[in-house]
Amino acid sequence: MPRPEAVQVVDLLVESNLVGHDSHGVVRIPDYVYAILEGKVKPEARIEVVRESCTTAVVNGNWGLGQVVASQTMSMAISKAEEHDIGIVTTFNCGHIGRLADYAQMAVAHDMIGYCCSNSLPQVAPFGGMQRVFNQSPISWAIPAGNEPPFILDITTSVCAGGKIIMARAKGEKLPPRYIIDRNGLPTIDPEDYFRGGAGLPLGGPVGYKGTGLAMVVDITAGILSGRGAAYLGDNSSSERAARASAGQGVFQLALKVAAFCDVAKFKEDLDKLLRVVRNSKPAAGFKEVLVPGDLELRTRKIRLVKGIEIPQATWDEIIQTAKKVKVDISRHLG
Amino acid sequence: MPRPEAVQVVDLLVESNLVGHDSHGVVRIPDYVYAILEGKVKPEARIEVVRESCTTAVVNGNWGLGQVVASQTMSMAISKAEEHDIGIVTTFNCGHIGRLADYAQMAVAHDMIGYCCSNSLPQVAPFGGMQRVFNQSPISWAIPAGNEPPFILDITTSVCAGGKIIMARAKGEKLPPRYIIDRNGLPTIDPEDYFRGGAGLPLGGPVGYKGTGLAMVVDITAGILSGRGAAYLGDNSSSERAARASAGQGVFQLALKVAAFCDVAKFKEDLDKLLRVVRNSKPAAGFKEVLVPGDLELRTRKIRLVKGIEIPQATWDEIIQTAKKVKVDISRHLG
Repeated sequence: MPRPEAVQVVDLLVESNLVGHDSHGVVRIPDYVYAILEGKVKPEARIEVVRESCTTAVVNGNWGLGQVVASQTMSMAISKAEEHDIGIVTTFNCGHIGRLADYAQMAVAHDMIGYCCSNSLPQVAPFGGMQRVFNQSPISWAIPAGNEPPFILDITTSVCAGGKIIMARAKGEKLPPRYIIDRNGLPTIDPEDYFRGGAGLPLGGPVGYKGTGLAMVVDITAGILSGRGAAYLGDNSSSERAARASAGQGVFQLALKVAAFCDVAKFKEDLDKLLRVVRNSKPAAGFKEVLVPGDLELRTRKIRLVKGIEIPQATWDEIIQTAKKVKVDISRHLG
Repeated sequence: MPRPEAVQVVDLLVESNLVGHDSHGVVRIPDYVYAILEGKVKPEARIEVVRESCTTAVVNGNWGLGQVVASQTMSMAISKAEEHDIGIVTTFNCGHIGRLADYAQMAVAHDMIGYCCSNSLPQVAPFGGMQRVFNQSPISWAIPAGNEPPFILDITTSVCAGGKIIMARAKGEKLPPRYIIDRNGLPTIDPEDYFRGGAGLPLGGPVGYKGTGLAMVVDITAGILSGRGAAYLGDNSSSERAARASAGQGVFQLALKVAAFCDVAKFKEDLDKLLRVVRNSKPAAGFKEVLVPGDLELRTRKIRLVKGIEIPQATWDEIIQTAKKVKVDISRHLG
């Protein structure tokens, strides 16, 4: 694997660990390596623009590493927005891109609003249904603030990310109620039921048609519009393990220049004020404080930069085994 | 009020009734009339473009009728997208625009994806909070299909629309649990508590930080980016009644040309298939069928076009009284 690409991928994985999203961190390394070994993900791939206008592009990722591809395509969206105020790029044939905020927030340094959404394998049932049709359909928005840290939203439009279910299973923990259903469409808190043919549930609980609607927008814009296809089309071409890293994400990325709409300094000042209004608003019973999206991540980042990142032994063992398998000597990195 | 504008507004109100969203239908007429009488909404206003590029515009609605303004601004977004594949228009000083789907779906006839979101008065608490900070922050997406009706999503990013709370109060009904909190931040099912200083709750229940995040994106893009300002800034310049019609909505509208990304016929075929996959997927326990967003509205529309629209006596009485107040003779429309 070329060194610059390896560094880029690992940097983003470690960043996910730093902000507390261990499900998108170094735990993914073995998956990525297996996807490369199976030939499904190609570290030396070059992206290819298959359709382009001054504001838009469709990119064939040629099965490059998701992080490498999605960083390049977001840069394209930003360049288009520099010239024409808005840029939208969709991408297909793309490996697992990890945490979407990494791309959305690339726009912030350019005083732009960044947005990214993606689809992949079907894992979530539609509202009222029991079969997997949609991906967890994550979306991320990043918006530049002034003195406050930027607004960073990074969520799935399902109740919870697939990674959270994988982590609960790995730790032998139960899930909160109404996160998943079992293969018979019945509520369950056992993460094993998800892997035995169950499904994730759409955001919204009793009004889950809203979460389903949001997932459909992601499936259409990131999946159909990119040419990847809707999530339900799945992927039968690789092992379960490699599929997790290479299922072929469809990606939709947007960059939007704030200065096209208003004075950038005023915009940032207004956003700063809004962020403070939310944080200073009175907590309801059972809450100690009111947070804005991204606050928890920033706190965790501060702590982990000092105290380090704790990796579960099982994850670490697997990384070492994977390194051995591909004859990478990591002994000099070990205690 | 000029006849063409009157017809345009009433057509959209009746359309809301037809598809079953009575909270956005003719029940609004008295509010609109009072807002005009107070001089807050100006039926003869002309919109003014205050900033523009080939892909973007910011529009001062000059307190025109929301439906009139928002139809014009969506047309602008569509024209820009005809030329440059994407168009985004934000609008401030705008009366109540009603049902957002009306504007999003204008894009569909042009083989474009349409999106619209808006903010207004603060009525929803942030996750973990008890004070009103955000508007219900509605969003709507409309996406062209082939043989199937277009995909139309029109939802609030709070658990429920303000109109639903108003309707429950009017009918003396209770709300489902976890829709609203009372002035002390405690759960309640009594819609009166909402009007006594309570607040709506963000979409997501136990993961309501997701709904809050979505509301913030709406508040920033429709509110701050347009110049209307965030919802928490409120509106103290008119009566409660007129405020409902004139609170100054900030609006964000986007049109996106499908042909910039892929073959339009193939896109529609793929969306048709996805819509059918969802509808044909197996219902979970307690559900008879799986629907896609817009299905219920289409069904109601079919029925009401034949059977007519039932208007509660109180609503009708108020419309007649309002007509008398402004000396409009509606006797020839009665019985």
